[in-house]
Amino acid sequence: MYTLYGYPKTRSVRVAWALEEIGLPYEYKLIDLKQGQHLSDDYKAVSPSAKIPVLATPEGTLSESAAIVTYLAERHGMQEFIPEPGSFSRAKYEEMMLFLTSELEQPVWNLAKHTFALPESQRLEEMHGVSAWEFQRALRVFASMLGGNEFVCGNMFTMADVIAGHILAWAKGSKLAIDFQNISDYAQRVLSREAYERAWRGEMSHLPAQ
Amino acid sequence: MYTLYGYPKTRSVRVAWALEEIGLPYEYKLIDLKQGQHLSDDYKAVSPSAKIPVLATPEGTLSESAAIVTYLAERHGMQEFIPEPGSFSRAKYEEMMLFLTSELEQPVWNLAKHTFALPESQRLEEMHGVSAWEFQRALRVFASMLGGNEFVCGNMFTMADVIAGHILAWAKGSKLAIDFQNISDYAQRVLSREAYERAWRGEMSHLPAQ
Repeated sequence: MYTLYGYPKTRSVRVAWALEEIGLPYEYKLIDLKQGQHLSDDYKAVSPSAKIPVLATPEGTLSESAAIVTYLAERHGMQEFIPEPGSFSRAKYEEMMLFLTSELEQPVWNLAKHTFALPESQRLEEMHGVSAWEFQRALRVFASMLGGNEFVCGNMFTMADVIAGHILAWAKGSKLAIDFQNISDYAQRVLSREAYERAWRGEMSHLPAQ
Repeated sequence: MYTLYGYPKTRSVRVAWALEEIGLPYEYKLIDLKQGQHLSDDYKAVSPSAKIPVLATPEGTLSESAAIVTYLAERHGMQEFIPEPGSFSRAKYEEMMLFLTSELEQPVWNLAKHTFALPESQRLEEMHGVSAWEFQRALRVFASMLGGNEFVCGNMFTMADVIAGHILAWAKGSKLAIDFQNISDYAQRVLSREAYERAWRGEMSHLPAQ
């Protein structure tokens, strides 16, 4: 049984989504970011860098959401959700994962960093505009990579769609414009999957009552 | 035969290094960034996003250096350079690759972006200090991940060391401080490999005479 350490409206929903797609049962441990629980000694024993999500597996803990979802698909996906290792399609999947995490996500993350996630002394308000500009540049590249495909690796839903879908949902939530029809249609397509809804509802259900 | 599109002192050295480690012959095509050759129509037909490196393979082109080196190891590494797909060690390799490209590299890249790589209107001098601060934070995490290991995935040299080694060389070249003994020793260990020297010397030999 896996244990997912997470918090609603963070990257942990990606892992919950992957678990729901595959149909794996898991225990969910809420790490209450608002109470600073990620900085506690108990959590640091699980995650030395104090990051979420972390997936505890029988063999040890894993961080980095894109690595975790790839691992889950490889272990349990039964040739769904990820192209065969060693194939050219798998290389394109890895290319997409790296583009998504290092190009498309970084401006969204920079916007969050310079709004609330960095210590106040390191935040620059001017980075809001730069982040929006960089996001549009990455989005243009993404639109051309996606083209008329149903999913980011062609016509097969893969774990790269979990990452892309979440980045686009996060960008929308951060009021970043997405003015490419193929991307809006794509976001609609992946974010309407039942497994995504089960994932974020599941996370929300662990929040303490107000 | 592979064709590597690159330019000295860029991320293309990672791919050249991986090719040299495995011992694969390759053709090298210099894309003269100083002459704006990456923006030419000819190159855009190879790389729509105008990025380097690109590896042309018999099945199509690949971008994203970390994806390319993983692909090369999987195709030709003969159980060297990368842990077995589906193993927990492979998941740790992927975790490391993602940490390296999305955490350790981003501050180094941000420093370059806000020094010369972004259009002037988007550059912020204040980002130099923020980048240095973020690099130190990521370096602290990296020092604890590395611990006393010889390589980033334990005692086996993998393609993740190609990426880590290059990021550290780049950081040093950008005058970012690396005050962790285990990281300095590690950088020395991986950057003294013959394949790395062959890679960067090979790239330099393609530069037009001044």
